[in-house]
Amino acid sequence: MKVSCQMEDLLYGVQTVSRAVSGKNTLPVLSGILLWAEDDRLFLQSTNLELAIECCIPAEVEASGKVVVPGKNFLDLVRFLPQGTIVLAQTGEFDLTVSYENSETVFRGMDPVDFPAFPEVQGDIEGSIPAPLFKKIVRQVAFAASTNEARPVFTGVLLDFIEGQLVMVATDTHRLAKQVIPWQGKGVGKVIVPAKTMQEIARFAAEDQQIDLIISKNQIYFRTGQVAFISRVINGQYPDYNQVIPKKEAFITKSVIQSSRFLQEMERASVVAREGAGVIKLHFGQDLLGFHASAPDLGTIDGHMSILHQGEEIEVVYNSKYILEVLKNIEGDSLYMELTGPVTPGIITSDADENFLYLILPVRIG
Amino acid sequence: MKVSCQMEDLLYGVQTVSRAVSGKNTLPVLSGILLWAEDDRLFLQSTNLELAIECCIPAEVEASGKVVVPGKNFLDLVRFLPQGTIVLAQTGEFDLTVSYENSETVFRGMDPVDFPAFPEVQGDIEGSIPAPLFKKIVRQVAFAASTNEARPVFTGVLLDFIEGQLVMVATDTHRLAKQVIPWQGKGVGKVIVPAKTMQEIARFAAEDQQIDLIISKNQIYFRTGQVAFISRVINGQYPDYNQVIPKKEAFITKSVIQSSRFLQEMERASVVAREGAGVIKLHFGQDLLGFHASAPDLGTIDGHMSILHQGEEIEVVYNSKYILEVLKNIEGDSLYMELTGPVTPGIITSDADENFLYLILPVRIG
Repeated sequence: MKVSCQMEDLLYGVQTVSRAVSGKNTLPVLSGILLWAEDDRLFLQSTNLELAIECCIPAEVEASGKVVVPGKNFLDLVRFLPQGTIVLAQTGEFDLTVSYENSETVFRGMDPVDFPAFPEVQGDIEGSIPAPLFKKIVRQVAFAASTNEARPVFTGVLLDFIEGQLVMVATDTHRLAKQVIPWQGKGVGKVIVPAKTMQEIARFAAEDQQIDLIISKNQIYFRTGQVAFISRVINGQYPDYNQVIPKKEAFITKSVIQSSRFLQEMERASVVAREGAGVIKLHFGQDLLGFHASAPDLGTIDGHMSILHQGEEIEVVYNSKYILEVLKNIEGDSLYMELTGPVTPGIITSDADENFLYLILPVRIG
Repeated sequence: MKVSCQMEDLLYGVQTVSRAVSGKNTLPVLSGILLWAEDDRLFLQSTNLELAIECCIPAEVEASGKVVVPGKNFLDLVRFLPQGTIVLAQTGEFDLTVSYENSETVFRGMDPVDFPAFPEVQGDIEGSIPAPLFKKIVRQVAFAASTNEARPVFTGVLLDFIEGQLVMVATDTHRLAKQVIPWQGKGVGKVIVPAKTMQEIARFAAEDQQIDLIISKNQIYFRTGQVAFISRVINGQYPDYNQVIPKKEAFITKSVIQSSRFLQEMERASVVAREGAGVIKLHFGQDLLGFHASAPDLGTIDGHMSILHQGEEIEVVYNSKYILEVLKNIEGDSLYMELTGPVTPGIITSDADENFLYLILPVRIG
């Protein structure tokens, strides 16, 4: 392999695929980046066996071929390379020589035959989502997934492709976030994708791009611009989210709350709550939302804010993290909070986005 | 104590003194911030017994008095307080109630009599330094101090007040940085101040301010704007820096090197060097500076750049960190490197600043 490319392109490529480079303590070849040249392009690939990333950049190809270089060190060098043309050439059996100005760096490479192939994904579900929409739903849903690997399905985001719609759901069984967007692609079905993968892909999508998806039984393929991702999917039965969400007639209260003010109050209450049991007590009364948190070693916080409230007076206790996280990600100036009782689920929705729904379970005290 | 103050002022004060709040595993009262009100001001104090910080902010004082609040949690709350007037009132024996809008937070306080007094420093050396100059010398010198607590004097920066001049020196015995600035204050003498303290104070000084200093036998006092610092000084004998720096006649070479290019080359060489023995070999020849680094598991880097070189050809090996750190902090487009031999000290100076000097010892190989 021998190619010339521009430093900025190379840096973009190496930074992109570095997100899936594994640490040194796994299979050695996974700590590397696979480079291969073809036509007028240099391809870069990495994989941690959960997520594989491929990026292609423009290059002048003098000789094709494949090399695997140590990922972290290669990125460290490329970051400091001078602007302009960089020459990458295979030397020796597996080595890569990086030349620029009057200097050259020789990286001891690894055998490319050991590098896992970037699989081709073919599937029944296929289509595109505008990147801004994808970024928004990932931000609004993925945070609600669990980080506890003991129950894998809950560490994922459910993508439920139904006729004309994509429903995205995440839950850790204490709260659930759901968003719905239009979907023009072909095929219907469900897939559970690791929440981390979804967040990683949302980072990479530029505002003016599309994200193409192909879903097979075991893998999901995303492409945006020069970058392609393949992620494993999580096997298992995802709970039926429609059954979990209370029916309209179950709600006994409905409040309209100013979002930004509520967030500020909950930020402050969380300072106290997290030094104690991590819970905040909310009191919904006529036109007032009162709140209280305490921590034995630190003190107490008490306050109230104006709301519009319909229905009976009610007191509920929530995990402060579950309240804060939705308030940080919800859109719109006003939110609606509807409760079914002091120890049964409530939902939070937004005036700005009727497709978003957040379900939250109260904490049972005593 | 009962005072009203503006949220922005309070945040500035709490953030400032938080830099010296101790962790919870030391004397409990040191994890607190002492607040006390007097005249039209609220004073905030913290100490970790090495460094004490005091900050005063404007306030309307209704009742004077002292309280000690948990530092970290207080900062966490103040960060999220709404703009506008905040009321701080002592409640109960030691508690502090923070009121704003329709909310109040009660912090369980600590007995202020346990809080170490902010000492008054009187000394023979006294004067002022413009903040920009102070920031510059601290940046250029303090990095060369040691972090090894086994030999305390080398973790400090020497301030040597001589007639009309302040000489600042730091060394870890492998390299030494020295800078000289004019000094109009009274008194002469030496004091060793922890390098971390110097860096902390440099952070706080605004560009348009003065830094006032008072130095006693055991403590050094700094004041800049609303903030005062008292640091312990390090006791011990600092080596005579004038004896360590080679005399003019000892130099056998002199090179003129473009600073920014040299930094870039050394950044790249360090990527390889730090995976190996952490050293870079420099070869000074006629109009060329060659460099080489290698790491058994990673590879090699080789290159050269144009320089002006007087004297014999010479090869020296340096710790890459010691080269990089000076290049990141030196001023000017060109630097001078003068060597006394392959295993004896060299010095680096700058065309832009004749008062700065960096001494570096080569690494002996084999």
